[in-house]
Amino acid sequence: MRPSGRKTDMMRAVSFERNVSKHAEGSCLVKFGDTHVLCTASLEERVPPWLRNGGKGWVTAEYGMLPRSTGDRMRREASAGKQGGRTLEIQRLIGRSLRAVVDLEALGERQITVDCDVIQADGGTRTASITGAWIALYDCLKWMEQRSMIKLDRVLKDHVAAISCGVFAGQAVIDLDYLEDSAAETDANFVMTGSGGIVEIQGTAEGAPFSEAQLLELMALAKAGIADLVAKQKETVAGPQQ
Amino acid sequence: MRPSGRKTDMMRAVSFERNVSKHAEGSCLVKFGDTHVLCTASLEERVPPWLRNGGKGWVTAEYGMLPRSTGDRMRREASAGKQGGRTLEIQRLIGRSLRAVVDLEALGERQITVDCDVIQADGGTRTASITGAWIALYDCLKWMEQRSMIKLDRVLKDHVAAISCGVFAGQAVIDLDYLEDSAAETDANFVMTGSGGIVEIQGTAEGAPFSEAQLLELMALAKAGIADLVAKQKETVAGPQQ
Amino acid sequence: MRPSGRKTDMMRAVSFERNVSKHAEGSCLVKFGDTHVLCTASLEERVPPWLRNGGKGWVTAEYGMLPRSTGDRMRREASAGKQGGRTLEIQRLIGRSLRAVVDLEALGERQITVDCDVIQADGGTRTASITGAWIALYDCLKWMEQRSMIKLDRVLKDHVAAISCGVFAGQAVIDLDYLEDSAAETDANFVMTGSGGIVEIQGTAEGAPFSEAQLLELMALAKAGIADLVAKQKETVAGPQQ
Amino acid sequence: MRPSGRKTDMMRAVSFERNVSKHAEGSCLVKFGDTHVLCTASLEERVPPWLRNGGKGWVTAEYGMLPRSTGDRMRREASAGKQGGRTLEIQRLIGRSLRAVVDLEALGERQITVDCDVIQADGGTRTASITGAWIALYDCLKWMEQRSMIKLDRVLKDHVAAISCGVFAGQAVIDLDYLEDSAAETDANFVMTGSGGIVEIQGTAEGAPFSEAQLLELMALAKAGIADLVAKQKETVAGPQQ
Amino acid sequence: MRPSGRKTDMMRAVSFERNVSKHAEGSCLVKFGDTHVLCTASLEERVPPWLRNGGKGWVTAEYGMLPRSTGDRMRREASAGKQGGRTLEIQRLIGRSLRAVVDLEALGERQITVDCDVIQADGGTRTASITGAWIALYDCLKWMEQRSMIKLDRVLKDHVAAISCGVFAGQAVIDLDYLEDSAAETDANFVMTGSGGIVEIQGTAEGAPFSEAQLLELMALAKAGIADLVAKQKETVAGPQQ
Amino acid sequence: MRPSGRKTDMMRAVSFERNVSKHAEGSCLVKFGDTHVLCTASLEERVPPWLRNGGKGWVTAEYGMLPRSTGDRMRREASAGKQGGRTLEIQRLIGRSLRAVVDLEALGERQITVDCDVIQADGGTRTASITGAWIALYDCLKWMEQRSMIKLDRVLKDHVAAISCGVFAGQAVIDLDYLEDSAAETDANFVMTGSGGIVEIQGTAEGAPFSEAQLLELMALAKAGIADLVAKQKETVAGPQQ
Repeated sequence: MRPSGRKTDMMRAVSFERNVSKHAEGSCLVKFGDTHVLCTASLEERVPPWLRNGGKGWVTAEYGMLPRSTGDRMRREASAGKQGGRTLEIQRLIGRSLRAVVDLEALGERQITVDCDVIQADGGTRTASITGAWIALYDCLKWMEQRSMIKLDRVLKDHVAAISCGVFAGQAVIDLDYLEDSAAETDANFVMTGSGGIVEIQGTAEGAPFSEAQLLELMALAKAGIADLVAKQKETVAGPQQ
Repeated sequence: MRPSGRKTDMMRAVSFERNVSKHAEGSCLVKFGDTHVLCTASLEERVPPWLRNGGKGWVTAEYGMLPRSTGDRMRREASAGKQGGRTLEIQRLIGRSLRAVVDLEALGERQITVDCDVIQADGGTRTASITGAWIALYDCLKWMEQRSMIKLDRVLKDHVAAISCGVFAGQAVIDLDYLEDSAAETDANFVMTGSGGIVEIQGTAEGAPFSEAQLLELMALAKAGIADLVAKQKETVAGPQQ
Repeated sequence: MRPSGRKTDMMRAVSFERNVSKHAEGSCLVKFGDTHVLCTASLEERVPPWLRNGGKGWVTAEYGMLPRSTGDRMRREASAGKQGGRTLEIQRLIGRSLRAVVDLEALGERQITVDCDVIQADGGTRTASITGAWIALYDCLKWMEQRSMIKLDRVLKDHVAAISCGVFAGQAVIDLDYLEDSAAETDANFVMTGSGGIVEIQGTAEGAPFSEAQLLELMALAKAGIADLVAKQKETVAGPQQ
Repeated sequence: MRPSGRKTDMMRAVSFERNVSKHAEGSCLVKFGDTHVLCTASLEERVPPWLRNGGKGWVTAEYGMLPRSTGDRMRREASAGKQGGRTLEIQRLIGRSLRAVVDLEALGERQITVDCDVIQADGGTRTASITGAWIALYDCLKWMEQRSMIKLDRVLKDHVAAISCGVFAGQAVIDLDYLEDSAAETDANFVMTGSGGIVEIQGTAEGAPFSEAQLLELMALAKAGIADLVAKQKETVAGPQQ
Repeated sequence: MRPSGRKTDMMRAVSFERNVSKHAEGSCLVKFGDTHVLCTASLEERVPPWLRNGGKGWVTAEYGMLPRSTGDRMRREASAGKQGGRTLEIQRLIGRSLRAVVDLEALGERQITVDCDVIQADGGTRTASITGAWIALYDCLKWMEQRSMIKLDRVLKDHVAAISCGVFAGQAVIDLDYLEDSAAETDANFVMTGSGGIVEIQGTAEGAPFSEAQLLELMALAKAGIADLVAKQKETVAGPQQ
Repeated sequence: MRPSGRKTDMMRAVSFERNVSKHAEGSCLVKFGDTHVLCTASLEERVPPWLRNGGKGWVTAEYGMLPRSTGDRMRREASAGKQGGRTLEIQRLIGRSLRAVVDLEALGERQITVDCDVIQADGGTRTASITGAWIALYDCLKWMEQRSMIKLDRVLKDHVAAISCGVFAGQAVIDLDYLEDSAAETDANFVMTGSGGIVEIQGTAEGAPFSEAQLLELMALAKAGIADLVAKQKETVAGPQQ
């Protein structure tokens, strides 16, 4: 039995609120249950030094948690003077995930930075970030298309979404919340495209090692969950920008 | 004529949403027009080293802006490796303002940290922060009172709220938005208590120096505005926590 | 009764020693009683990036305290690895105060940095810094005029000087020394021009909030004091450079 | 055809040189072809703050690359002032991998730090590090057993080793060298125990997303390779310490 | 011919002004010509962690240059975020030099920090610092003796002073000023005690290597110069504290 | 009697292994007994900003110690966030020593960085570094000569090598190992050229001051030792590159 009473293959309530920022070219407040992440996509007419004058663009991400997004207040990274290893790891993952569905040449020599700031955390902040970042990126590209800068469907090749699965109390479950995450024996994050391709898989044994059979069980859950998330993304961008 | 069409003595729409954080002991999303600040109050059972074993508590504040809270994306301070001078100046101001209405001995040897994170900026982030921080602090102290840790009205001696006033296009106006702030000749921030005492006043000539008469004109606007803000705070905490 | 025996409206002995640095284009050792600050103005033929190729110059300031300028030795900021919030706040204030009386276009695309280093501290280091920095800036501009780079009186539009006032033991007093500053109920810093315009005002209630009447009382003291300081500046720059 | 002429399922020459440090309790120079990593295990009689007085020990890892271990000289992280995201990510992975086979309670309240310093890099530095780190850890625990501090086989529950696999030129291959790694379509790192359990799996699509079938193909290669590595570890620790 | 017209064995005018700080237990403004260094000795009733509860004290030094102590303004180290290699090297040298003449056990478990801040630089800042630091240290120890904390002559075993010598325009000269220092072929710093023992010698070939004969020539100059400096130190501390 | 049983004028076994890095233009693993340092020379086609467009090149060095190169594990400088004073001092010394025998104009506008990383430490790491760095530099310049970039014998004017000498148990000894170094009364490092010129001398009294006679005794030992080291360097570079 899961602490939340959910069935093993049941995700939390997922919602996307678009256009939550007056300033950003694209933005989305994504909620996976009590995990809330504000994603903003910012367009800049410059690329990192190693890409200059190559005609290619760049998509990158930054991740942060508000100090009291968590049960105990965490030290503010700006005051600590550096981003921790977990933060750097997550923002590199978000960036790679988004770039997997973007044609950087079609984007042209510009950079889009997607900031994922966790307003409230209850497990799964990185998967919610990736899933919401795609919406913010979509809206940023749409903003560009409206200004005849790009063709949206040439730049954005597919959807990308992510979900965590894990072995909790001996059972494979999807979309772990904080209580489950802290006690899971195995924890895996899956990033997949709309067409079902795998972009990234990260599985970690928290306690005993896991088997290939268990991994496949988690992947089956993830596939179904990500298909749902992609359907919700489609429905969201088909609707009005609010 | 103000860009927003407001009269010289008219503040923007102000709202307080309480209890917006699942984790924090007190929280408030404050809006002054398009300026939105998330304030959370976190209780910790320890005090800074210089206060240890003295029986007194401490109230402090930290301030941050999300990278795309502004028109152009700002560099994330956590990634830059340090908090800028403006950030440090503002968080010191918020902390002093709150301590002006708290009896630190009645609080006991504990620390409350109020984090003010700007979700969206349109001028006046420091004054919105102070005004919303008071609500978060109130709810944190109420949380403590419900657990018999303190008596709320012995710890919290008064309201505190803040507003900016300035000389824009030759006229004294209240609650400057970003467009006005960028063009103001004089910019002043006022922090006052519910009983009308001045806690802090910071006036700066952006262009030509200003006169004592102008300062008094700004102060008159501020007094009226802060009285309004305090009335709204009273109404808010009298209502349910949502 | 003030600890120093001074009357409420009596400043400490003020002196300016010009030309104390062999290297700087302008320099001044300013003393407000036992508070001694070394101010040097350095001319550089380059401006910050955001001003490049705009034809305008820049005046900025840096502030520091020698580790044993104070009663207890403070940690050296260079060794701590960063400048504290108070340091950044003060150097921003000094810079703003000087720029209020400089015509940056008449200066041309150059930067003058005024370093204010506190050799010995006894309260009022920021007001002594501003007042002495004006002399260093004047001498730097004179040095430039002698080399036909600028016209001094087109660049430097007015005097600027500063003084602290506060409520100590229930009475409004001027130019607080360390003993008074530590015990003051209210502490305010005033920066004004030679023609009596207000450049900056910063008033803080250290204990109970203060009233508008008290603020006006402090301002009256400040006006008289700053007029005295400006008179001393005039006398100083009229004399030989030593 | 692989650049090195290896068959798809052929690893590079692997060797372990034990006891290469005069000072460390355990040490190993591991080579996967031209990738050379020096691993040292250091015993300290203290644990991180969050474990104090809990009776449990800790095993952690740090990772670094010598500036000219790579084709182009990289900036020294000590001089840059911080460890990069990739470094932090890898050292967190090494630490988790080792802890997966250690009984931290049987270790007692002590910390073992395994430093993995890349002397020369040619792809696969993280997998070589994990595989060599196990030898250094083994020898450190043996050193402790010889001093009657622990029972080696109660602390060290299993072997752990790692290998990278990827899709290169359309084919699944094992143990990618730098040339292959730079051009691989998919890159996956596998960490497994001696008994075949999965400790960690990290798969990334560098170009097009990959399929579940491809992942299983990579995993089949990894299983065989890791079994070989574990056999070599067994042979190594069965031999003399040199 | 030396730029200053001095003979090869002639030092610049040397002076010590004692008691220049209202706060420090001992202080000295030392001048070697246009090189001016403010030395303050601060007593603290605590020692570094590695000496705790050992009954021994510690003497250490910190060194800094005001930004415009030099011909061109240098970046403030506090703003750069770290002390440079040259700064660290010099402050380590000053500390070692002072400790060479102090009985740390007789000092007791306390720390004296001597801050050497260069007000104006014209070559030889490290040798002036050491020579002036001895005076500040002497006065700090005298202050302690007056309070019956120590016996001065049991703690301070000897004088220590320093001078630079170098080969300039083919000739061995003493006490190089900046012009000579920039052009010297060989530059050597000597630290010696009152009884003529060598505490530290640092010789560097700036251009062509130098010979043992040249080193001995420089040392002969240094011996005579340091004897003079020690005589001046004796005269200074025999006089009143001003 | 020395702990190692060596005679006073006997150095430890010295060896140079060339060409130990697949990537670096020149490399050398130097051993002075149990002190092992990996030296790599990296050629870059750019110079530091202050040399740009001047036609001159630059040779610089960086130094580091692996965390467990020492008896107790040291904190990794990359993780501490800065290089310590000792590190900076040593790498400045290595750079100066190498530049003393290089014609920077003949090198042309390029930079060679020699990294000296201590794999295992047992005293004398800086002298081993300098001596081995010369080999790495030689091989880098030879690499350049083979590509017709320079003439080796016009760029490299002489050999440079270094040795430590000290007073241990009352006797002058050469090439101190860690046990001797920790207990030495006087410690001196000598850097000399192949033709016997002195490049750098650094002598420090660890306990009582030393005399000129003692310094000369140490220098005599150093001369003989460095002559031996230079002979070994010649023999090494005359042989094959392995």
